[in-house]
Amino acid sequence: MKACPVPANGNERITMAHGGGGAATHKLLEDVFYPAFSNPLLDVQHDGAMLEIPSDRLAFTTDAHVITPLIFPGGDIGRLAVFGTANDVAMCGAEPRWLSVSFVLEEGLPVGVLRQIVDSVADAAREAGILIACGDTKVVEHGKADGMYISCSAIGVRRKGFEIAPQSILPGDDILVSGDIGRHGMAVLAAREEIALEGLSSDLGLLWPRVHALLDAGLAVHCLRDLTRGGLAAALVEVAGTGGLGMRIREDSVPVSPAVGSAAEILGLDPMSLACEGRMMVVVDSGDFDKALNILHQSDPAASKIGNVTRHPDVVLENPYGTERLMTLPMGELLPRIC
Amino acid sequence: MKACPVPANGNERITMAHGGGGAATHKLLEDVFYPAFSNPLLDVQHDGAMLEIPSDRLAFTTDAHVITPLIFPGGDIGRLAVFGTANDVAMCGAEPRWLSVSFVLEEGLPVGVLRQIVDSVADAAREAGILIACGDTKVVEHGKADGMYISCSAIGVRRKGFEIAPQSILPGDDILVSGDIGRHGMAVLAAREEIALEGLSSDLGLLWPRVHALLDAGLAVHCLRDLTRGGLAAALVEVAGTGGLGMRIREDSVPVSPAVGSAAEILGLDPMSLACEGRMMVVVDSGDFDKALNILHQSDPAASKIGNVTRHPDVVLENPYGTERLMTLPMGELLPRIC
Repeated sequence: MKACPVPANGNERITMAHGGGGAATHKLLEDVFYPAFSNPLLDVQHDGAMLEIPSDRLAFTTDAHVITPLIFPGGDIGRLAVFGTANDVAMCGAEPRWLSVSFVLEEGLPVGVLRQIVDSVADAAREAGILIACGDTKVVEHGKADGMYISCSAIGVRRKGFEIAPQSILPGDDILVSGDIGRHGMAVLAAREEIALEGLSSDLGLLWPRVHALLDAGLAVHCLRDLTRGGLAAALVEVAGTGGLGMRIREDSVPVSPAVGSAAEILGLDPMSLACEGRMMVVVDSGDFDKALNILHQSDPAASKIGNVTRHPDVVLENPYGTERLMTLPMGELLPRIC
Repeated sequence: MKACPVPANGNERITMAHGGGGAATHKLLEDVFYPAFSNPLLDVQHDGAMLEIPSDRLAFTTDAHVITPLIFPGGDIGRLAVFGTANDVAMCGAEPRWLSVSFVLEEGLPVGVLRQIVDSVADAAREAGILIACGDTKVVEHGKADGMYISCSAIGVRRKGFEIAPQSILPGDDILVSGDIGRHGMAVLAAREEIALEGLSSDLGLLWPRVHALLDAGLAVHCLRDLTRGGLAAALVEVAGTGGLGMRIREDSVPVSPAVGSAAEILGLDPMSLACEGRMMVVVDSGDFDKALNILHQSDPAASKIGNVTRHPDVVLENPYGTERLMTLPMGELLPRIC
């Protein structure tokens, strides 16, 4: 092929031709995507993946990722896209197994940056034990996409015997969080504003191994929710609202690292509303609370019981001085584009 | 709720707060998305959909849609996203059943336009018999994203007894197209450049009903490929290349409407490289060619046999005067952002 749209030197950039479906698109697929993602499903190069799934109980989720900057302390948009989507599957009590990855690339993006993110997607998928089953790439004009956006969907296989959903929570259930909250939102904010916050990196991580351990132990897990946009506050209010019940949370039992706590105080942010990307809320029958907390502690000593499900349909936050406030969904903009 | 981020008047616009995961995001979901998409899977409002799938043979596909303009003669980005993704599933010989829909919205987008597209997604999904299982919405700053991008993934149930893939084509197989080519690309180009082309609208349509009929008739269908980016030219070269064989195509048997043909001539475009969104190539055992063509004719009288699979690994285009040229992947930019 004479015209080589992706030359071997390090200065190549994405052009509109890479999105046209012709020779340049194929060269990009062959040079960047197939080597990183190669597996028997993708190697067929058909319009979709042919799956053999030995279960009729599946979970199906989707997530668009528009984070800026593309690379942040503790991760990048590729790792975030894989783990974020896999975590949504895990929140259904399902093992993440197959992933679709769809890129919208900005004209002018250095191909070197694309390679780095594509490699990160591939590494994250291997780490998660999830197979990249299908993908797509589109290109938009310079100025239209901040480098790239990545949308993923995932299919997982659900465990038998569990109905994990907001509708399954019951009055008296215990509410746990799997670790300290708000590190992802704070790390992205610090990277974006070029604030130096020593030792602060995103909590980006996989939740399935912990969910797997909880389910394997046969614990009565009623609901799981990862603490992404809107943070713990949004997760509590959403799950309580959908479940038609309330919650009572003790503020001093919510784990917040000193770095996040002091930065949040200086910046006037509420850690309860800061996004995490590797933390979940676990609602479990109170009879299984200690076993659940033991399992969570094996991965993160900061895991903690933070409160209970109540009949009264409000989410109430108790502070250590005994005063109470009603939790509502965060208003306004919060931190834009943290996932 | 006092602060109403989506007021009832017709001038409301998307704000960054709609992407924050807080109250504004929830209001947008409740006002725009849930009413349009409501179904038992989505109404659970969990992180993902819980599917019961009575088959272990699935197809899984993904497609990002960045078309400009959002609304074009014969369709819009919503209908395109549903049909385009469903068509990829159909090309695996599978019935499209479940869809994920992920929106990247531009700050400032009129909520009225979003409603129109969301309703179009809902209508298209009903028409396709496909269930919207899960979704996501992100917001990026004004000037990014041209109104909106939509990424979809779909899950379909594959028919038993068929191995439809480029690797299944055989020398001597017949190659059919399901209708006249190039209308989608030309209609979008005309809309974008404000060229008046009378009677020209996109060929956007669902391919599964025709695939279903071909499979139900028990025909030896070896490969299917929808003619999207890169048009018929890219589809032929890709399938031949992946299948390790060649093709011989008679140029005068390729159906092109007079409107597309004359516009292409004036604009110096090759109809063979123009995108379609409701046309497919069918590679079928030559013994079943007449039955396959009869079935395709029931939907579109322009369906036609255009050539054969050959042993020699080149795609050769014969013109009516007996001269031949080698088909290759379209080079350069073609028409950017037609899907």
